[in-house]
Amino acid sequence: MAEVHVPDKAAIEQAGKRISGYLHRTPVLTCSAINRMFGSELYFKCENFQKAGAFKSRGATNAVLQLNPDELACGVATHSSGNHAAALALAASRLGIRAYIVMPENSNRIKINAVKEYGGIITFCEPTLEARELTLKLLLNKTSATEIHPYNDLRIIAGQATAAMELLEDFPDIQMISAPVGGGGLLSGTALAARYFGRSVKVVAAEPAGADDACRSFKSGSFIPSVNPKTMADGLLTSLGSITYPIIMKYVDDIVTVGEESITEAMKMVWERMKIIIEPSSAVPLAAILEKKLHVGNLKAGIIISGGNVDLSALPFKQVI
Amino acid sequence: MAEVHVPDKAAIEQAGKRISGYLHRTPVLTCSAINRMFGSELYFKCENFQKAGAFKSRGATNAVLQLNPDELACGVATHSSGNHAAALALAASRLGIRAYIVMPENSNRIKINAVKEYGGIITFCEPTLEARELTLKLLLNKTSATEIHPYNDLRIIAGQATAAMELLEDFPDIQMISAPVGGGGLLSGTALAARYFGRSVKVVAAEPAGADDACRSFKSGSFIPSVNPKTMADGLLTSLGSITYPIIMKYVDDIVTVGEESITEAMKMVWERMKIIIEPSSAVPLAAILEKKLHVGNLKAGIIISGGNVDLSALPFKQVI
Repeated sequence: MAEVHVPDKAAIEQAGKRISGYLHRTPVLTCSAINRMFGSELYFKCENFQKAGAFKSRGATNAVLQLNPDELACGVATHSSGNHAAALALAASRLGIRAYIVMPENSNRIKINAVKEYGGIITFCEPTLEARELTLKLLLNKTSATEIHPYNDLRIIAGQATAAMELLEDFPDIQMISAPVGGGGLLSGTALAARYFGRSVKVVAAEPAGADDACRSFKSGSFIPSVNPKTMADGLLTSLGSITYPIIMKYVDDIVTVGEESITEAMKMVWERMKIIIEPSSAVPLAAILEKKLHVGNLKAGIIISGGNVDLSALPFKQVI
Repeated sequence: MAEVHVPDKAAIEQAGKRISGYLHRTPVLTCSAINRMFGSELYFKCENFQKAGAFKSRGATNAVLQLNPDELACGVATHSSGNHAAALALAASRLGIRAYIVMPENSNRIKINAVKEYGGIITFCEPTLEARELTLKLLLNKTSATEIHPYNDLRIIAGQATAAMELLEDFPDIQMISAPVGGGGLLSGTALAARYFGRSVKVVAAEPAGADDACRSFKSGSFIPSVNPKTMADGLLTSLGSITYPIIMKYVDDIVTVGEESITEAMKMVWERMKIIIEPSSAVPLAAILEKKLHVGNLKAGIIISGGNVDLSALPFKQVI
């Protein structure tokens, strides 16, 4: 395998310093009821409390803060229907620069509103990857904005790594960390942080069985793209990238898959027991514990709660009255 | 008016020390999005993160810890369909004593399960106040257990007061505190803590218009019981008590009422923006800000989030798949 490009330890430490004035150092929560249930010690790093409601703000902010004045003057751009869009728009607004966001026209209303609220300049397009990429390309040509990819970017990976770095600063004796995997930005950052800042910490990713391209790529040793994925965990639909895949192959210990019912059950457990709102993608590692695919035993295990952006308009608030 | 019996400052400080080894010192959260919306500085004291999911654990634990050995030997008892039942069962279990809980047979499944999980001994009865009181009386005769009333008890009031005491310890320059009012245990404790530990802190209670007995009692100056209340805020259905009412008359600055739609909107706002689960009762003060009944202006204002016990089985988790 060719040499793997990775952010080094200093790059992650610098990312942590760089973003600290802009973002939350999120809390690490524990839940005695859930610990009792599994006989484990679980430490939840709560990125649902992060700015813009997800870990994505870490990478986006770390990337934007490294642009030079010429780049800043032209703004940033990306295509995203999800949390990266809002995170990039917020990061750009904090620096007073423009963020051009290409969004599929069928994007979730909540995500569109979040991007608008943070001042992102939205261009809608057909909901296909081709249309998204073409629209972004035209936009980049027109604006000279800098593209900030949601995960296949060393600055993004270093930013996402700061979540696990903080977790290990707070609880240095954590022995295992689990994170969900979609494009692999969070997972590759988590694996690097575990290597740099932990004491032989095992890193196990969890993925929905309905979007198991990362698991199949990992097990087979050759990149398999995500084709027609089906899962409620809408943050985990994307394929791994050319930068994230080799990092994951080298630094991640295992990837396990879980069914939709377990994701639902894990999400409900966290809502009911911990009284926090997490999005389906965040529930995937706990679902893996529920399915006994992820064996935490009596280890001290960290779980990265990736975000908390859920469309509550689907909830029966009206009927409750 | 006759002399008002109140827990003094020392009683509340002692309650704080007494319960500290048993309960959480809950976090105080802020939310920049909500603050921007109202141009205010709101500090949310998060009792939804308290043991058993509500502030009720404070009073119940404070009461149980003051029983003498003879009383402990016979256990405690109460009638409750709500958070007090679970709180008392948990407090008793921590001391290894029995908790007899009379619950109406139509109680919420979640609340029944919580009481069972904490080892409470449940006696079901018809869902009327008469049946509840009679069943409890028979039980007390049979067991010689000590009744722990959910709010009309100085030990309970002193316990509930510790939430506002902690809030003011963390943020001494808070100028106003708002809490919901049902039986008045939380409200009277909050008002006393504001008086003892704050620097001229105004205390304004918020109540659902569909259960406005406290407001009408407060405005008229004569006790009006709660008759056939209708609100989604199921923690606020009860009447004030003979101990809580005079404290509220003397120490609370105002009581305002809000509609069900505002409670829904406020609850949704907290779920969406703060990513925390709060129960409808907890949303009532924020609903009062939304309705411009509670004028926080640019004050530093504290809000007691009373609990987070919501029946999620009513939420469309199954449909999401």
